Amino acid sequence: MARLISLVEDASPRLREVMAALAPYAASAGDGEGAQVIGLTGPPGVGKSTTTNAIVGALRRRGKRVGVLAVDPSSPFSGGALLGDRVRMQDHALDRDVYIRSMASRGHLGGLSWATPQALRVLDAAGCDVVLVETVGVGQSEVEVAGLADTTLVLLAPGMGDGVQAAKAGILEVGDVYVINKSDRDGADQVRRDLRSMLGMAERPAEAWRPPIVKTVASKGEGVEELVDALEQHWTHLVDTGDLQRRRVRRTRDEIEAIAVTALREQWRGVHEHDALDELATEVVAGRSDPYAAADALLERLDGVDTTPQGT
Amino acid sequence: MARLISLVEDASPRLREVMAALAPYAASAGDGEGAQVIGLTGPPGVGKSTTTNAIVGALRRRGKRVGVLAVDPSSPFSGGALLGDRVRMQDHALDRDVYIRSMASRGHLGGLSWATPQALRVLDAAGCDVVLVETVGVGQSEVEVAGLADTTLVLLAPGMGDGVQAAKAGILEVGDVYVINKSDRDGADQVRRDLRSMLGMAERPAEAWRPPIVKTVASKGEGVEELVDALEQHWTHLVDTGDLQRRRVRRTRDEIEAIAVTALREQWRGVHEHDALDELATEVVAGRSDPYAAADALLERLDGVDTTPQGT
Repeated sequence: MARLISLVEDASPRLREVMAALAPYAASAGDGEGAQVIGLTGPPGVGKSTTTNAIVGALRRRGKRVGVLAVDPSSPFSGGALLGDRVRMQDHALDRDVYIRSMASRGHLGGLSWATPQALRVLDAAGCDVVLVETVGVGQSEVEVAGLADTTLVLLAPGMGDGVQAAKAGILEVGDVYVINKSDRDGADQVRRDLRSMLGMAERPAEAWRPPIVKTVASKGEGVEELVDALEQHWTHLVDTGDLQRRRVRRTRDEIEAIAVTALREQWRGVHEHDALDELATEVVAGRSDPYAAADALLERLDGVDTTPQGT
Repeated sequence: MARLISLVEDASPRLREVMAALAPYAASAGDGEGAQVIGLTGPPGVGKSTTTNAIVGALRRRGKRVGVLAVDPSSPFSGGALLGDRVRMQDHALDRDVYIRSMASRGHLGGLSWATPQALRVLDAAGCDVVLVETVGVGQSEVEVAGLADTTLVLLAPGMGDGVQAAKAGILEVGDVYVINKSDRDGADQVRRDLRSMLGMAERPAEAWRPPIVKTVASKGEGVEELVDALEQHWTHLVDTGDLQRRRVRRTRDEIEAIAVTALREQWRGVHEHDALDELATEVVAGRSDPYAAADALLERLDGVDTTPQGT
């Protein structure tokens, strides 16, 4: 497993062969539904690693095989935080049914949107029942991870000020289950009220999933069983309604597209030979061409593509 | 100007014609360097709108024509915040040499990375000396905006807790000028010390720009002249060293690529007709194909593209 994920991290040419070999072991190829991919997101300091650790413990008590993938947007400044987070998960280091892995995208052109789904394929094919995906760092990657998950878990905590307000607004649309961690602190009920009122603004059809809000103190294990119950209920909902299949088709679309676009960008950027894009950009900067004409030139060898915007 | 930016916002088919017509008026086509594009970024609550407002005032006193572009990642939940921000900028509403515009990407497939550079072309061609680009919302868009700017201004403020720490780590690499706003509050000196120590970690060649740290109280106008001086110094540095040309070529590359990729994605996603991507994704989910084979099929009609990863 570790060696296969390293191939993903290094964007190895051998990945093509690996992915073809893994295809028959894909989540939905066999008799079950494969691994439940749970994405954890939330502002820094909210207790993501502690919560992940607690969830892993609860899942193990229920006999599940668990994978944890910590994805890192490869900032040179976040290395320390990443290391610290991993250390906190050493509770499960000796358990052979728990696989924990940090993964960086190491500046590969396609980034995490290219690498993460392929790492998930490895963990799924290896027989994990649940894979927890946790992002280290800020912003962008959190939204991406929500797109990859079957179930998105949004963590909040009291007393985090404006940042939480903003984070809420950004992540409200993506949560399937909400956790108010550190709920023994002042302000937990206020966070719950705010969250309820914001969730209440979203229009949902009657049969739709209504995201539960679970209060936890992950460091003491409080509320963790209820949280894992909620995650299982969401899984049952996904399977029963067919949403699981729809989400997986949607994320596989993104995965295929990321591979195709990355291949094109590598060609255009002349990673290996001539840098066509640089010449075109220089002409546009000089006012001798415009971006659409340049994009046309880039796509010239490709059939049936029209760069004229089509409206929305 | 307003009508041209609306064409961008609506992804109008007429944009192609507009961009061709504007090309001869591009920043570097004439005798000058065109508009200095200044991107403002920083965590929510740090005073981005107030600072923008103060910078506009200072630039006007120096006789500059100013454009302000507030880009919004189109979350249905951020509408209120956006409106509030705009209201705070009414100081300049009657000044004909200040053009203020909010822009949403309205769910267009290419998003802000597609729309923002084209809106900047309009403001530049219209003769703005400085264009301030401010993001509303969190995460992703802030990083994108840094990629678009000649000068990236990172705003921090005391007393914002963990969120600031994290934001710092994420935005440290992108800042050309740092502002500690609300610097009359407790903790401003601590933020400056933290920031200095983090900036000190980055290795820079001797001749490189060393990002200054400016303390402001934007709501009272304190420190704003020094800030605008620092922005002008960075501009001079960019022009003198040739970095301006390099940054513009780089961002124009991204712009051309975004147009080309968006056109391809629209085709692939069958926005207008057959949805090839959906069929391919369904095969992969079922384990009958793998993502590389599917990406190949997607690129089949395109010449000379190999989806095999090439390593880093």
